Amino acid sequence: MLRQTINKVSLIKPSFQADKYRTFSTMSKQFQQYRIETDAFGEIKVDDSKLWGAQTQRSLENFDIGRDNCLMPEPVIKSFGILKKSAAIVNSDLGTLPKDISENIQKACDEIIAGKLNDHFPLVVFQTGSGTQSNMNSNEVISNRAIELMGQPDKKGSKLIHPNNHVNQAQSSNDTFPTVMHIAATLEITNHLLPELTLLKDSLKAKSDEFAHIIKIGRTHLQDATPLTLGQEFSGYVQQLINGIERVEKTLPNLKKLAQGGTAVGTGLNTKIGFDVKIAEEVTKETGIKFETAPNKFEALAAHDAIVEASAAITTVSASLFKIAQDIRYLGSGPRCGYGELSLPENEPGSSIMPGKVNPTQNEALTQVVCQIIGNNQAIIFAGTQGQFELNVYKPVMIFNLLQSVKLMADACKSFRIHCVDGIVANEEKIHKILHESLMLVTSLNSKIGYDMASKIAKNAHKKGLTLKESTLELKALSSEEFDAIVRPENMIGPKP
Amino acid sequence: MLRQTINKVSLIKPSFQADKYRTFSTMSKQFQQYRIETDAFGEIKVDDSKLWGAQTQRSLENFDIGRDNCLMPEPVIKSFGILKKSAAIVNSDLGTLPKDISENIQKACDEIIAGKLNDHFPLVVFQTGSGTQSNMNSNEVISNRAIELMGQPDKKGSKLIHPNNHVNQAQSSNDTFPTVMHIAATLEITNHLLPELTLLKDSLKAKSDEFAHIIKIGRTHLQDATPLTLGQEFSGYVQQLINGIERVEKTLPNLKKLAQGGTAVGTGLNTKIGFDVKIAEEVTKETGIKFETAPNKFEALAAHDAIVEASAAITTVSASLFKIAQDIRYLGSGPRCGYGELSLPENEPGSSIMPGKVNPTQNEALTQVVCQIIGNNQAIIFAGTQGQFELNVYKPVMIFNLLQSVKLMADACKSFRIHCVDGIVANEEKIHKILHESLMLVTSLNSKIGYDMASKIAKNAHKKGLTLKESTLELKALSSEEFDAIVRPENMIGPKP
Amino acid sequence: MLRQTINKVSLIKPSFQADKYRTFSTMSKQFQQYRIETDAFGEIKVDDSKLWGAQTQRSLENFDIGRDNCLMPEPVIKSFGILKKSAAIVNSDLGTLPKDISENIQKACDEIIAGKLNDHFPLVVFQTGSGTQSNMNSNEVISNRAIELMGQPDKKGSKLIHPNNHVNQAQSSNDTFPTVMHIAATLEITNHLLPELTLLKDSLKAKSDEFAHIIKIGRTHLQDATPLTLGQEFSGYVQQLINGIERVEKTLPNLKKLAQGGTAVGTGLNTKIGFDVKIAEEVTKETGIKFETAPNKFEALAAHDAIVEASAAITTVSASLFKIAQDIRYLGSGPRCGYGELSLPENEPGSSIMPGKVNPTQNEALTQVVCQIIGNNQAIIFAGTQGQFELNVYKPVMIFNLLQSVKLMADACKSFRIHCVDGIVANEEKIHKILHESLMLVTSLNSKIGYDMASKIAKNAHKKGLTLKESTLELKALSSEEFDAIVRPENMIGPKP
Amino acid sequence: MLRQTINKVSLIKPSFQADKYRTFSTMSKQFQQYRIETDAFGEIKVDDSKLWGAQTQRSLENFDIGRDNCLMPEPVIKSFGILKKSAAIVNSDLGTLPKDISENIQKACDEIIAGKLNDHFPLVVFQTGSGTQSNMNSNEVISNRAIELMGQPDKKGSKLIHPNNHVNQAQSSNDTFPTVMHIAATLEITNHLLPELTLLKDSLKAKSDEFAHIIKIGRTHLQDATPLTLGQEFSGYVQQLINGIERVEKTLPNLKKLAQGGTAVGTGLNTKIGFDVKIAEEVTKETGIKFETAPNKFEALAAHDAIVEASAAITTVSASLFKIAQDIRYLGSGPRCGYGELSLPENEPGSSIMPGKVNPTQNEALTQVVCQIIGNNQAIIFAGTQGQFELNVYKPVMIFNLLQSVKLMADACKSFRIHCVDGIVANEEKIHKILHESLMLVTSLNSKIGYDMASKIAKNAHKKGLTLKESTLELKALSSEEFDAIVRPENMIGPKP
Repeated sequence: MLRQTINKVSLIKPSFQADKYRTFSTMSKQFQQYRIETDAFGEIKVDDSKLWGAQTQRSLENFDIGRDNCLMPEPVIKSFGILKKSAAIVNSDLGTLPKDISENIQKACDEIIAGKLNDHFPLVVFQTGSGTQSNMNSNEVISNRAIELMGQPDKKGSKLIHPNNHVNQAQSSNDTFPTVMHIAATLEITNHLLPELTLLKDSLKAKSDEFAHIIKIGRTHLQDATPLTLGQEFSGYVQQLINGIERVEKTLPNLKKLAQGGTAVGTGLNTKIGFDVKIAEEVTKETGIKFETAPNKFEALAAHDAIVEASAAITTVSASLFKIAQDIRYLGSGPRCGYGELSLPENEPGSSIMPGKVNPTQNEALTQVVCQIIGNNQAIIFAGTQGQFELNVYKPVMIFNLLQSVKLMADACKSFRIHCVDGIVANEEKIHKILHESLMLVTSLNSKIGYDMASKIAKNAHKKGLTLKESTLELKALSSEEFDAIVRPENMIGPKP
Repeated sequence: MLRQTINKVSLIKPSFQADKYRTFSTMSKQFQQYRIETDAFGEIKVDDSKLWGAQTQRSLENFDIGRDNCLMPEPVIKSFGILKKSAAIVNSDLGTLPKDISENIQKACDEIIAGKLNDHFPLVVFQTGSGTQSNMNSNEVISNRAIELMGQPDKKGSKLIHPNNHVNQAQSSNDTFPTVMHIAATLEITNHLLPELTLLKDSLKAKSDEFAHIIKIGRTHLQDATPLTLGQEFSGYVQQLINGIERVEKTLPNLKKLAQGGTAVGTGLNTKIGFDVKIAEEVTKETGIKFETAPNKFEALAAHDAIVEASAAITTVSASLFKIAQDIRYLGSGPRCGYGELSLPENEPGSSIMPGKVNPTQNEALTQVVCQIIGNNQAIIFAGTQGQFELNVYKPVMIFNLLQSVKLMADACKSFRIHCVDGIVANEEKIHKILHESLMLVTSLNSKIGYDMASKIAKNAHKKGLTLKESTLELKALSSEEFDAIVRPENMIGPKP
Repeated sequence: MLRQTINKVSLIKPSFQADKYRTFSTMSKQFQQYRIETDAFGEIKVDDSKLWGAQTQRSLENFDIGRDNCLMPEPVIKSFGILKKSAAIVNSDLGTLPKDISENIQKACDEIIAGKLNDHFPLVVFQTGSGTQSNMNSNEVISNRAIELMGQPDKKGSKLIHPNNHVNQAQSSNDTFPTVMHIAATLEITNHLLPELTLLKDSLKAKSDEFAHIIKIGRTHLQDATPLTLGQEFSGYVQQLINGIERVEKTLPNLKKLAQGGTAVGTGLNTKIGFDVKIAEEVTKETGIKFETAPNKFEALAAHDAIVEASAAITTVSASLFKIAQDIRYLGSGPRCGYGELSLPENEPGSSIMPGKVNPTQNEALTQVVCQIIGNNQAIIFAGTQGQFELNVYKPVMIFNLLQSVKLMADACKSFRIHCVDGIVANEEKIHKILHESLMLVTSLNSKIGYDMASKIAKNAHKKGLTLKESTLELKALSSEEFDAIVRPENMIGPKP
Repeated sequence: MLRQTINKVSLIKPSFQADKYRTFSTMSKQFQQYRIETDAFGEIKVDDSKLWGAQTQRSLENFDIGRDNCLMPEPVIKSFGILKKSAAIVNSDLGTLPKDISENIQKACDEIIAGKLNDHFPLVVFQTGSGTQSNMNSNEVISNRAIELMGQPDKKGSKLIHPNNHVNQAQSSNDTFPTVMHIAATLEITNHLLPELTLLKDSLKAKSDEFAHIIKIGRTHLQDATPLTLGQEFSGYVQQLINGIERVEKTLPNLKKLAQGGTAVGTGLNTKIGFDVKIAEEVTKETGIKFETAPNKFEALAAHDAIVEASAAITTVSASLFKIAQDIRYLGSGPRCGYGELSLPENEPGSSIMPGKVNPTQNEALTQVVCQIIGNNQAIIFAGTQGQFELNVYKPVMIFNLLQSVKLMADACKSFRIHCVDGIVANEEKIHKILHESLMLVTSLNSKIGYDMASKIAKNAHKKGLTLKESTLELKALSSEEFDAIVRPENMIGPKP
């Protein structure tokens, strides 16, 4: 009945890996030198250590909303790198973009894809609803970085490689941002969420197998019911995750359809015929994932139903995860005054007062994540209803919430698997004991002594606090040997031939 | 620019078709005679004009919650008819149920399926969370009706045909209710929702085709943008519904998996091997829809992820419908002081004060339905997280909300299609006029006179309130003929070769 | 340890009180005779047994959406009676409505208030978003009924007493419907919800007092913690409801502000100065509840923040109710294999297989109601955001959901109180036993033998499955008498002087 | 009709103020030296440049969930500083904490309050649901910093000043974390949200006054209706915010009730009588805001209804803000093909293609924030239902969402006010023109020429696309002078004497 302790290896490791996250903490101190950047509104000063241009700078000044934890998510930035690189290739192939300019743009994009330029993407989610400012942020950064890469670092802001004419060629924010939403969601789901769901499913499957022989009391309405094996109980969780993985996978085909080529309102004005198809091909090459062009660009700009759909599936899976985590912590409740059927790994001290108190903290983290995902889903649904004419202007808030849900679920599944599921131990002695205290085993007597006598035995046991066997013997319904021969939980865990 | 009036035929027709809905308004007056029904708790008096038994009567007395509009939905009752009939057939085939009893049960079930016994299902949604009381309601009604059909109407309550031993044979509420949830949802989605979504999609497609030649101003961020055709705009709606239909269809495979055969906790105790498969086959025969047995009964009882999944898909579609209905009412806003591009059918007087005031009432009904569906979805998600061990005890509230969402969406799509979409008329004169007042057509001058001069023309027009052409001529940038030759919206609605 | 059975009195009583609910089940059969009613659209046939007119009939034909359970709620109809009566009095006082017409209108309104004319209000919620059609329904019914009351039953449809000019005088749907929303919500909350919340609070308080002497194990993170009394545990529930009642009460001031007097857009066009104030006075007289005119009619028509606010408060209370119902069912889980600290009343058979199985069905009904309320709240929030210019056209769906939440909560609190809380019995023996098995009582040894030895005792007990006392004696830390003198849970349930 | 441009001053200012936000970007690089920290689980290595201890380090390693944007919010950390300082004072006063230790703890707390130690709080939200790990983080940091302040920097980890015995004296995570939740929420609402709501209300009020003389067309159901002034329209927004401020204020009394003194399960074990009251007094002194001790500590630990209540109020206000922002962007839609009644400030280029295109980007940011708040609210409601026995273990996710909602709303209101509302200009010419094109002014002719002729005029105008006056003259109903004398919108904007 002892709780298991997983030894945590106390090797030195980075206290936590936060340095990979974008932060801007030291920026203002370095704002010693500036350069002048320009746009249609005129000149504006920009920190010369940064690659962004005038429009990014204006957004920075005009949208100081939730800066502490609502930066445009990194996967969006990376996906802009992928898209802009693809566009440079296609435009060069189509003959509308000089080859050398295309190549320098591609090099700059590779740096974005590698995460090297994250410090140059300072904008928040709560900006213009088309994501125009983040599109321009990427155009400006690519422009200036490509100018540097041409060997002209002092020409930043010169637009030698022009953010609009070259980097944004044949594109509009209205089609690039939804394209980037779909690329980012697809990558994160494919590379992070689905693998973690699968690993968690595998871990639960291993436990289901491990526990296949342990017969336990079933509980319906929280009340004692007929028995099942602990392995069967866990098999339900496995099935939930098998279904959940399929649910998420079913949303990918729509996420893999790209808006690119629709430009401003979906008509494709300023593109060449076939541009949309070629872009999807290049993105496919770059990512190794098969993308295709959206069949209707009007839908792809004005609605983001595919994002709503993806969030809906993830939320459905989150409901499964809640059930699993909730069951496991209740089964582990105790150690003396709860269900006490499982021992969960101890990962940290529970209380300085009471030894043996282990809290199901991983379950708590996971169920809190479910709350967040359900909330995020609500934000996405609402935003998804609010497209207006040719554009839905809730793009940033939609992808922000979806990517957060994806990341939180992936992270929490991983943490729950490693720090909880893999270390679960069944308290077989306790499980066995309460199973045999249960009154519902009386069911197996029905065929031998009839429902009425069985009922009498059970009621007598319940009233007097006896075991079933004690009650049976007291009522002289069967001998001790007969009772033991018949009342066998192992015969109650499946259909009969 | 006139609004269209659809003549409503004032033929006599039933003021409304409410008599098909279950009501219990005259019941108490007829409660002249009673009979005694019994269960494990003892005797209880039941209105002798009703077929239900003791357990139904107890639920009626113990759960007076939301009786005005929260009765257990009719499709659930019908599905109980289908399931209980199937069980009678299978049990008879397996040799555990006498053939004559099976046949009388089947006949009683046929009456339930036909809706003839709805008056005998008085229970509300907010009862026990397993739906046990509604399962017993169906067992009791079938028992008493089958006894009548045997020619022994005075033996009601005698359990000659036993509600548990015969009607509920090899079943538990814990597997019948989820089975019935899946049957009901599948039938309603297949027979009502999908056809109505398809018809609405077809109507919008017809409008998209009808409006293919009408070039109009595009709007992004609610601001004038480059042009598109009204047909293109509607094609986006069509695409949303094409996707939406697929989204709903993708949920059917999981809904078509039946929990039946799991009995109390998922183990299948008290069933014969193969019972689960045979039940699915019989339900398939009865409904003409291919059902199959759930691969894991523990999941099927303890979680209702398939219901969450279905609601999620329907909610995604509701977001699409909101966008469509919202766009159309804004495009129809006016008649003088709004966008005024569309005339929506007049179905009823708008105001006694002002002639010509037509309100987009169908759009209002539909968008209100979307609110309800989004709310229902939230109820379902929450309930879906709360399974406990071997059972989720939120079954009735989950299926209630899902079926309401299905019905409301089907009804509202039909109403919106007939009373709004099919009668939409484009105000071509107004559309043409404002398109040509727009400044964004200046874009087409870029290649001829350069971006700078084009920009100067536009700014001058904006500042002085001129048309683009007036501004062009004032600035002597082009001749009138040149302007007319270049500024052609019809060249701005697609990609270039 | 026995579960308590509450004897249900099986006296004859109406099988259920559904006849007070509006139904239209027999209507079409009686549609033998019709009369012609007219509106601006022309003539239309109406069932002559009904009092409604042309506009109601058109709505009936144009909005066949959710007719089975989405009729306009009865409290809305009653409130129309109150409002129209008040308007008739004020208009008569102001000299704009002839006194005899006013009196007959008032008489007809009294019948509506008494619920006698419910059969003449057939419209559904999902109609025009202003509720115009229900406003006209009430105008038309009052018109025809007042004509009957004048002794001219054959003049129905003649508009002798005119639905618009007389009944709707100085009013618009745009101010009457929000007025009626506020009256209905105020009445239902005041007369039904608050009394039921109070009664439930009182019942829980009585249990808290009854259980004041029972010391039990505390549980945090579901793990055994330091003790408290069962009375203290219940006192938390009482506090939640005390706060909850205040939360709901705090929403009443805004609900008691009436939009009436704003007419079409909030300006009060077509009213006399002071009309708004007088209406509020009359409604106050009629209801006995102090209403006042809204300080800003533009806000009162275009937004329904007061409805959102009321739903928000009710939803907050629903979260409290969930916690209470959830705790109680877990504490009642068992009887042998759960927490087993409480016995909940048995109200109906749990299972035909196992005697002693009682399911916490009232808790299940209540927690399902919470799901519904949380969903309804989401529908209301969404609808509440969507006001447009001078009008929010989501009025019916907002009041429908709010009134449903109010009714469900009131009904479920009552049912939970009567059928569950009042009959809860503490299983003192079990509570006592597991408290003393718990290891956390070791805390009380700290001061005597030091934290380190106490810790050693607890760890030893945990490891070997001993009681604390056994472990203490085994380690020879204290004598049996010393142990008993120190380890006293009754000293651990409050702060020290 | 020109759009207004607000000149953005391009003064050098910090590119953005991110350095005040907690980041950990450079941490791992500095992890050159470590020290050994200990807890009940044994030794663990900690980066010696950090002040945290063993339990924080374990949490860091065990909960790598959402690290990119889900750090425990800064106001929580600051509030821990306030609480721990207060506890040190009270414990010293009560004689249980040595004075010098108390003083050093207080100094360390002052640094936390000043935000100087943020880099030492690396934990994420998705940790244990009691917030224990963040409580220990604060205990450990205060311990080590107080040891440094005693002049013994090389004794970090020694527990000379003990994180539990001294810093956490008479406290439990279970009462400190809810206390901190309430302090943080109260401070942020009081100091940030309410001031920004008030400033926005004032700005809208100023616009309402400025626009008091401008008569415009009203719109109901998006259709032309009777006129009102633009000032009246804005007065509705002002009223919404007046109410909204009150709604938020009404939640403060419950937030100002502190759980402190309940310790582990609400009983106050290990505290002295009066400790709870004294803590509230000290927090009051420290913050200048009147806090008091919660009347029932069981409720205060096991439920967080006050957090749900606060979120509910903020969500209600968010619905108001959506309506306001939505109206304003539609009224500003155009410039040629929309409503065009308002010009919103231009803050950044809209499109490189079309001059004059200004997008309502601030409205988009604000309405996206509303989506987020509505989502966050859902997360909070769900979490709020899930308290279990003596503890709700969703504390971090609840306060995280509430504080994000508070911050986003405050930030967005400020941004919307400065960058949008204050610069709104009414397009009086356009407003005047469409008002007089409207047909609903016909209403004013009713009294002169009768409803029938007025109706005829309107219908004729509608059919032929005439102005009302043209139609009147064509039908020879009135002379031009008569028409001008009667049709006066300024007489339609209020009740009559």
